[in-house]
Amino acid sequence: MTSTPGKHSPSHTFDENTPLQLDCGAVLSPFTVAYETYGVLNEDKNNAILVCHALTGDQYCASDHPITGKPGWWSRIIGSGKLIDTDRYFVIATNTLGSCLGTTGPKDINPETGKPWGVTFPVITIADMVRAQKHFIDHLGIKQLFSVIGGSMGGMQALEWMASYPECLFSAIPIATAARHTAQNIAFHEVGRQAIMADPNWCEGRYLEEETFPKKGLSVARMAAHITYVSEDSLTKKFDRGLQNRDEVTFGFDADFQVESYLRHQGASFVDRFDANSYLYITRAMDYLDLPKRGNGRLANVFKGAKHVRCCLFSFTTDWLYPTAENKRIVHALNAAGARVSFAEIESPYGHDAFLLEEPEMDRLLDGFISAAADERGI
Amino acid sequence: MTSTPGKHSPSHTFDENTPLQLDCGAVLSPFTVAYETYGVLNEDKNNAILVCHALTGDQYCASDHPITGKPGWWSRIIGSGKLIDTDRYFVIATNTLGSCLGTTGPKDINPETGKPWGVTFPVITIADMVRAQKHFIDHLGIKQLFSVIGGSMGGMQALEWMASYPECLFSAIPIATAARHTAQNIAFHEVGRQAIMADPNWCEGRYLEEETFPKKGLSVARMAAHITYVSEDSLTKKFDRGLQNRDEVTFGFDADFQVESYLRHQGASFVDRFDANSYLYITRAMDYLDLPKRGNGRLANVFKGAKHVRCCLFSFTTDWLYPTAENKRIVHALNAAGARVSFAEIESPYGHDAFLLEEPEMDRLLDGFISAAADERGI
Repeated sequence: MTSTPGKHSPSHTFDENTPLQLDCGAVLSPFTVAYETYGVLNEDKNNAILVCHALTGDQYCASDHPITGKPGWWSRIIGSGKLIDTDRYFVIATNTLGSCLGTTGPKDINPETGKPWGVTFPVITIADMVRAQKHFIDHLGIKQLFSVIGGSMGGMQALEWMASYPECLFSAIPIATAARHTAQNIAFHEVGRQAIMADPNWCEGRYLEEETFPKKGLSVARMAAHITYVSEDSLTKKFDRGLQNRDEVTFGFDADFQVESYLRHQGASFVDRFDANSYLYITRAMDYLDLPKRGNGRLANVFKGAKHVRCCLFSFTTDWLYPTAENKRIVHALNAAGARVSFAEIESPYGHDAFLLEEPEMDRLLDGFISAAADERGI
Repeated sequence: MTSTPGKHSPSHTFDENTPLQLDCGAVLSPFTVAYETYGVLNEDKNNAILVCHALTGDQYCASDHPITGKPGWWSRIIGSGKLIDTDRYFVIATNTLGSCLGTTGPKDINPETGKPWGVTFPVITIADMVRAQKHFIDHLGIKQLFSVIGGSMGGMQALEWMASYPECLFSAIPIATAARHTAQNIAFHEVGRQAIMADPNWCEGRYLEEETFPKKGLSVARMAAHITYVSEDSLTKKFDRGLQNRDEVTFGFDADFQVESYLRHQGASFVDRFDANSYLYITRAMDYLDLPKRGNGRLANVFKGAKHVRCCLFSFTTDWLYPTAENKRIVHALNAAGARVSFAEIESPYGHDAFLLEEPEMDRLLDGFISAAADERGI
């Protein structure tokens, strides 16, 4: 990952008075949270929406990315006059713990050794990520978030907020997510991790000290993962067997097919903006998530404190990574816990990544849910 | 790939009088076909069944594998008194062109340079593989095969036989296969190829000369592919979130989960028996297959000569690699071409690999089809 000049997020470093206790037993102190905010926190401090990003996302949900220069990944719906209206709400997006854009993660310096953590960084969980966010929300003096929203791993964080800090939530919007990783989910992540670790430039995790980077391994990991983010149909509609700038196959191993060129591009562009060890740590955190186990085999048990939380969940018909069935299990558990829960399965051809794309039906429902909740909240 | 002592297949080398014309324009001469046979070819030479193997399969369909020592991959159904009864039929299985167990492929010596071909080996197609098989069948003096059977890539070869040499077939049994690779099929193969090529021990394909082997890359390729061979349900039923010889997760990157351990084993054991460049060539051949294009956009056109061929196709309900819909398209095309075609979708939890596993319903139907065809053939 090469850092290039650009706008960088503000950050807050928590000193030894606010240690971050991790599930693995380790304590991170000091630790830093990098963040972006949009809009203004009102006097009652009750109009804050926490936006949680996905595995390879970041805090730049509604501002240009400092490395790629691309618009924020959810700038379609977050902004002045937009669905998540920053004239009405105070939007907070933190870079997640273990990631690589300002919040403490494996690419940072271990204060005890003066060297980058690498794989000596403690293995983290989704609960740890949320614990870091909670420290940050406390720091802002916010007692209760108006809402927490996120897709994919962002949705896992929203579920974790409902399980761990329900009193701090007025509403929650988990999208295209899961309460536990399945064997197939873990399998795909393990392929990505093995691809990274197979790259000799990974250097057993010490590539920063060795001044190198496992570009090829991380790129392969991204390519494999990307296939799971899109539906088979959408790949066919977009590329089918179309050839890349040629009329006939070349009888070679170049990217003859558009889909190959596309995937290679996904891999190559990813390594410029993401850290390989962060990829290991964050995929591991997702694999470790098992909320039903925390509820002694009954997911509803973890949501016992969340009866008052207005929840709205979304899934997408062609999402085969976290399919509707998995989202429905969460809805059933929330119902069983007596929570106020809405659910919509959105007809979409795009697969898992639909939550990042224009989906008018989701937008309408999301708008209705958020507006009604805000009216109820009196903001 | 390390060769270990054991029983090796007989082989036949075709000299300059029988050159192998390839689709890419190159000609292979001489070339060698390694094979196993079971049973006896009858006097009329009309009881031969050609068994075509899948991507990483081989000719050892009913005899122990010379490297792994494991029983043949289809020894469950091929043998004396078995479903494909070697007391009645003469079973032929050739190692496919481009593979690595005796038939000419990239690990062999290019006679013109005296060095291993590596990636200077010409890129081959499924049609080329079948052309090599046809030479071998001619060499045996067989005018018409009683049947050609295979699953996955083996099924593609069966389809190719129907398209290219229908007069040489009495019957054909393509299983869990496709007449063209979809964008998603190509995408998964491309991930595997990139994983191999990312391994510095691949040495731009010259690893044999450099006396090394891209074990890690090939292992990652196999892991990614393996996920596509099994259904999500079967991974869950087999492993779910079970831990590997431990009671709790270790907060590390070891194979905490059984599914990780299983996948790593799939990768590690594969590199001992397979050649990395063969993997590149064979996946490419599969990606290039596009029978509908050969029929000018209409698959039925390629089967025009196959009206007399008794066909029986199988798909599996949970196969997401070559799903039932793709197999049905082939059936429809065969019907449109006026062929005699049976089709069964087998209820199976195992995904694509079901064709290798015990599936009593398939076995019953297969037995009925083969016996009836043999009776009709008078053998």
